[in-house]
Amino acid sequence: MGNTFGHLFRITTFGESHGGAVGVVIDGCPPRLKIDISDIQAELDRRRPGQSKITTPRKETDTCDILSGVFEGQTLGTPIMIMVRNQDTRPQDYSDMAIKYRPSHADATYDAKYGIRNWQGGGRSSARETIGRVAAGAIAKKILKQFAGVEIVGYVKRIQNLEAIIDPNTVTLEQVESNIVRCPDGDCAEKMIERIEQVRDQGDSIGGVVECVARNVPTGLGSPVFDKLEADLAKGVLSLPASKGFEIGSGFAGTLLTGSEHNDEFYRDPTGTIRTVTNRSGGIQGGISNGENIIIRVAFKPTATIRKEQRTVTHEGEETLLAAKGRHDPCVLPRAVPMVEAMVALVLCDHLLRHHGQCGTLKPEE
Amino acid sequence: MGNTFGHLFRITTFGESHGGAVGVVIDGCPPRLKIDISDIQAELDRRRPGQSKITTPRKETDTCDILSGVFEGQTLGTPIMIMVRNQDTRPQDYSDMAIKYRPSHADATYDAKYGIRNWQGGGRSSARETIGRVAAGAIAKKILKQFAGVEIVGYVKRIQNLEAIIDPNTVTLEQVESNIVRCPDGDCAEKMIERIEQVRDQGDSIGGVVECVARNVPTGLGSPVFDKLEADLAKGVLSLPASKGFEIGSGFAGTLLTGSEHNDEFYRDPTGTIRTVTNRSGGIQGGISNGENIIIRVAFKPTATIRKEQRTVTHEGEETLLAAKGRHDPCVLPRAVPMVEAMVALVLCDHLLRHHGQCGTLKPEE
Amino acid sequence: MGNTFGHLFRITTFGESHGGAVGVVIDGCPPRLKIDISDIQAELDRRRPGQSKITTPRKETDTCDILSGVFEGQTLGTPIMIMVRNQDTRPQDYSDMAIKYRPSHADATYDAKYGIRNWQGGGRSSARETIGRVAAGAIAKKILKQFAGVEIVGYVKRIQNLEAIIDPNTVTLEQVESNIVRCPDGDCAEKMIERIEQVRDQGDSIGGVVECVARNVPTGLGSPVFDKLEADLAKGVLSLPASKGFEIGSGFAGTLLTGSEHNDEFYRDPTGTIRTVTNRSGGIQGGISNGENIIIRVAFKPTATIRKEQRTVTHEGEETLLAAKGRHDPCVLPRAVPMVEAMVALVLCDHLLRHHGQCGTLKPEE
Amino acid sequence: MGNTFGHLFRITTFGESHGGAVGVVIDGCPPRLKIDISDIQAELDRRRPGQSKITTPRKETDTCDILSGVFEGQTLGTPIMIMVRNQDTRPQDYSDMAIKYRPSHADATYDAKYGIRNWQGGGRSSARETIGRVAAGAIAKKILKQFAGVEIVGYVKRIQNLEAIIDPNTVTLEQVESNIVRCPDGDCAEKMIERIEQVRDQGDSIGGVVECVARNVPTGLGSPVFDKLEADLAKGVLSLPASKGFEIGSGFAGTLLTGSEHNDEFYRDPTGTIRTVTNRSGGIQGGISNGENIIIRVAFKPTATIRKEQRTVTHEGEETLLAAKGRHDPCVLPRAVPMVEAMVALVLCDHLLRHHGQCGTLKPEE
Repeated sequence: MGNTFGHLFRITTFGESHGGAVGVVIDGCPPRLKIDISDIQAELDRRRPGQSKITTPRKETDTCDILSGVFEGQTLGTPIMIMVRNQDTRPQDYSDMAIKYRPSHADATYDAKYGIRNWQGGGRSSARETIGRVAAGAIAKKILKQFAGVEIVGYVKRIQNLEAIIDPNTVTLEQVESNIVRCPDGDCAEKMIERIEQVRDQGDSIGGVVECVARNVPTGLGSPVFDKLEADLAKGVLSLPASKGFEIGSGFAGTLLTGSEHNDEFYRDPTGTIRTVTNRSGGIQGGISNGENIIIRVAFKPTATIRKEQRTVTHEGEETLLAAKGRHDPCVLPRAVPMVEAMVALVLCDHLLRHHGQCGTLKPEE
Repeated sequence: MGNTFGHLFRITTFGESHGGAVGVVIDGCPPRLKIDISDIQAELDRRRPGQSKITTPRKETDTCDILSGVFEGQTLGTPIMIMVRNQDTRPQDYSDMAIKYRPSHADATYDAKYGIRNWQGGGRSSARETIGRVAAGAIAKKILKQFAGVEIVGYVKRIQNLEAIIDPNTVTLEQVESNIVRCPDGDCAEKMIERIEQVRDQGDSIGGVVECVARNVPTGLGSPVFDKLEADLAKGVLSLPASKGFEIGSGFAGTLLTGSEHNDEFYRDPTGTIRTVTNRSGGIQGGISNGENIIIRVAFKPTATIRKEQRTVTHEGEETLLAAKGRHDPCVLPRAVPMVEAMVALVLCDHLLRHHGQCGTLKPEE
Repeated sequence: MGNTFGHLFRITTFGESHGGAVGVVIDGCPPRLKIDISDIQAELDRRRPGQSKITTPRKETDTCDILSGVFEGQTLGTPIMIMVRNQDTRPQDYSDMAIKYRPSHADATYDAKYGIRNWQGGGRSSARETIGRVAAGAIAKKILKQFAGVEIVGYVKRIQNLEAIIDPNTVTLEQVESNIVRCPDGDCAEKMIERIEQVRDQGDSIGGVVECVARNVPTGLGSPVFDKLEADLAKGVLSLPASKGFEIGSGFAGTLLTGSEHNDEFYRDPTGTIRTVTNRSGGIQGGISNGENIIIRVAFKPTATIRKEQRTVTHEGEETLLAAKGRHDPCVLPRAVPMVEAMVALVLCDHLLRHHGQCGTLKPEE
Repeated sequence: MGNTFGHLFRITTFGESHGGAVGVVIDGCPPRLKIDISDIQAELDRRRPGQSKITTPRKETDTCDILSGVFEGQTLGTPIMIMVRNQDTRPQDYSDMAIKYRPSHADATYDAKYGIRNWQGGGRSSARETIGRVAAGAIAKKILKQFAGVEIVGYVKRIQNLEAIIDPNTVTLEQVESNIVRCPDGDCAEKMIERIEQVRDQGDSIGGVVECVARNVPTGLGSPVFDKLEADLAKGVLSLPASKGFEIGSGFAGTLLTGSEHNDEFYRDPTGTIRTVTNRSGGIQGGISNGENIIIRVAFKPTATIRKEQRTVTHEGEETLLAAKGRHDPCVLPRAVPMVEAMVALVLCDHLLRHHGQCGTLKPEE
């Protein structure tokens, strides 16, 4: 049951990195939404391997098919199945890893849990699994956009110690896509690319932080107490491969302030709307969106699979050394951007439908 | 549906801070577990208000009743309902806040979502809601302890900029409980207490970081891909009031390292067990526990309700000033410790049952 | 997890028949619904023991308390907890049954599953558990009534071989409540009462069929394919104690017809609404309500606990004889009527909210 | 969310009858189960159209592909995706039905709910959707067989008024498959086939009753109170197309008996096992399996789509006449047998895993 996410807008992903196909079933999509497969493909292209010199060279076009739930360009309200066939699998690259556990990878724990794993690649723990999420996220974005003009923009905020200066309130998708590292701060982006190439050439890897903003989010989304909006966002992004941390609004840094410094005071803007002067809450208070921009940050560790030689053990428990082969990202951050956006979109879309289900049905009695 | 947490070991909490009662229904508890109400009360006492000079002086004994699911000292396998009646409610303290929204509190968003709220207190957004979680957590801890000797120890790691030095591998509950701020580093604890009192006297508040370790966790817990163990831990703690961030293992700091520095190399210990040399993964790899200690950190913001005057608006949208009355914690951290432990216990217990359901049922075919 | 029902309008019941209390937590209720506790009590009074000479004489007023989720007479949108304390428990009546399994009762299977049971009464398998369902059903009825004027009327259709003639399209609650057996066919009702008394005096029991109609149900409710409306109705009523069968519309009898005889032809009524000439579908086609009256029938077996002596075994496995003591209904049907109505209301209300969540959120793109 | 069934062993189906493909994702399958695709295909072949002269002549080989979750012939514990591509679609047959609603079919209600439907066929309401269920059921059967030797045998018990005599305790799959109507009473089967052909030639259709037995079911399966085993079985089979009723054990007929006639007395068999003398309970008491054979019956109405001319309306609301074209089953019963078996297997398998999760994890404390 761990492969399903969401309640009303609910997705189930399937597929191993080196199996027949990867994909998603989306249940609960509102009917009569116009779907152009190119919208979905565009997001998959942002995620796919081989898109630039700083990503894994695995060659996958990641061309998707919609096999159900869409008819004459519109959603039917029935499950939408979207699938991508795996093509450029090279199981021979994994022959060594079939018996040696990659440090900090999922090889050992999958074996411990299931007593079996698809050793021809990362299997289900591969970033390839996120194809289904990104495809579903493209549809969720469309619903959010159409319903309330919601915009979700993710970007690389930091690579190792290289931190970019970006205004989440104004940053655009075009700015993000203007370079291959997906960091809209051009100067910083150049240094990041340089750093990634340097690390890659050393057979090593690096991590960093993705920031993501959702603008024009309607007030009232989120279902206290366990399904607070930030709780579901945290779960969503922490379920992405290689993520190690989550912050909303002021996050860990906010713990250094006093309440009087930290609180977001209310005021009435010229249009009469209640707004907050600051946004340390990150757009969510008490687990419910307040209409301000939702801003989160996600920490991604350096990629576990590296060419540098490391100590490890075989699945028989013998100590050995491993220098990983195969094609791997020296830094997952550029490709993680669309993944984070997808998870944010999936959470918001599910809560949009849930909110309307509970609070939009009944007119108050006179 | 936002008030239920877990799948097989599943809890549902209920109750407003100034309503009749708060409590929990626990569904899916294994039968024949010995339950002593004093075990539950002991955890509630760690959470209750008025426990020390640095917590809110609201007087609640938080005495719990078990009204179903336990018979002759043992669980029946049926729903366990545990309830605490509210006693020391002072709605008059909230008369001002009935019309003025507290900055960074849930008053405004509850009104926006539901069009109504219990203005006599924090309602459902109050930390009082966590009574049910802590009571259920006490039972989850018992199951984990009995099944595999799992120990869960939380403690205050940092208050504002005062950071304690604590070894998560050896810290004990006794050390945590040795002072009122629940920081097992005695010297630092003194400074923390002093700081909290100082801030309280200024009518202000502060935040910090709780760290929590789970030791002796069996390998194999966690349900990739969406219900990765760290994803469910993140959701669990981010659903606690005032939490703003989550880290596991190396967390955000890990993003500054390279893969070769960050990876946890494997070795075989003298008993033949496969272990990792370091534990930057924080006990979880690929969403599945690997047998090492699970270590997480949670950021809690400074309490929103403060006596210092702040700008705000009324629920009619008029700008005004508010200096909060009522009895509030100047720092939630000491009371957040048992809450974090409870959420960790609930997540691990649910995944223990789920793991046995999926992977413990079937013997491999010969 | 078996104690929760519904997805958006979700209830969780708790309590053993001879424990401290029985009750329910209702999550997902729309906010600002006016709740008068007397509305709930009225339904509980229809369900309670001791209401007439043909029900169990156990003396319970079943007076309910609302302990959360309602404020100043309106729902808050937060969990509503409703509870009834057990009063007239006589565990001594069960001393024999503590060791002897009642034939066709749940004693033996609870022991087999859980290795423990509350032998002081039926525990969780007692009809007493349905208090929570009926209380929640009262609120569901209110939502349905307010939203679309939905009326749900159940009644006793048959006791043993005594079958009543009742028009589901016009029958009223007042007619149902006009006699103690809840059969609106007065002549038949008299015979039913006589039969129940006769059987009771013989230390035996009888069963029968409850029919239930829901009128003014909006079209479009139901979530194919697994959550077809009739599937959820079937699950709901088959989860009631003593139920053995379910039919919708033509049911089993419909299998004797040909398609051309059975199909409900469409026509356009004078107001322009599309209606069906007949209603063998029972108001649901393809799992979705079609606006016609929803009509279901539920078979209830004769009560298992009887005074007549029967062969059985002890929980040690020794063969023995049992003549049950305690206070038991000679026929569950009269009290089953509000239970069936409650389950129908819970299913419809959940699907109403779900339908609005999925299909009411998005306006079609121009 | 209506397209998912089960909790721990959870399936999600997708696909329209005239879309690209139909299939299923199975989540929660135990790992290391040996899977031979021919086991799955064998069940699909029992379900597929065109298998005999009394089923629809639509030509579909229903050849399935496993695209994830199985590796080197064993399950990985990850989602198993099984898919069948649609081949023999003839949308032209539906041109009339694109505008005219078939009486008692789902055309009108799908339009009412979603405002759109795939008019090229039955879409999601087609029996074609059950391919995913039957494929998943084949795996569930394998788990049940391997775990405890559970055998599930379904068969046609009645066609219209032709009722067969079959002993559920001894009937075999071979007997069921010995004729095309899947009725193991040979004499009756011949009459049934004759009747179906006769009705088909008249452009009409008929229904009947499928009975299904599950033998060697372990005691203790079922999760009271809402997820009683019979409640989940009822939901499972009532979610099948054309089903109108459900009975377990004595069912509706049992309501004619008194308690002393109906109760299943206990005895101790020569091996010391506690058994019941009779089995009117149908293998389930209090919602929990008692080790006796589980016996259910399902009513299927006559197929809605018939060639005979009927009154109906267009989707514009104009009254008209319709004589359906396309290829349709004159009687769904023979193909419904594997569908019912699949639903029974899915329910039992889910409850097997759930039972082990809750009750098999913890050893009682000494």
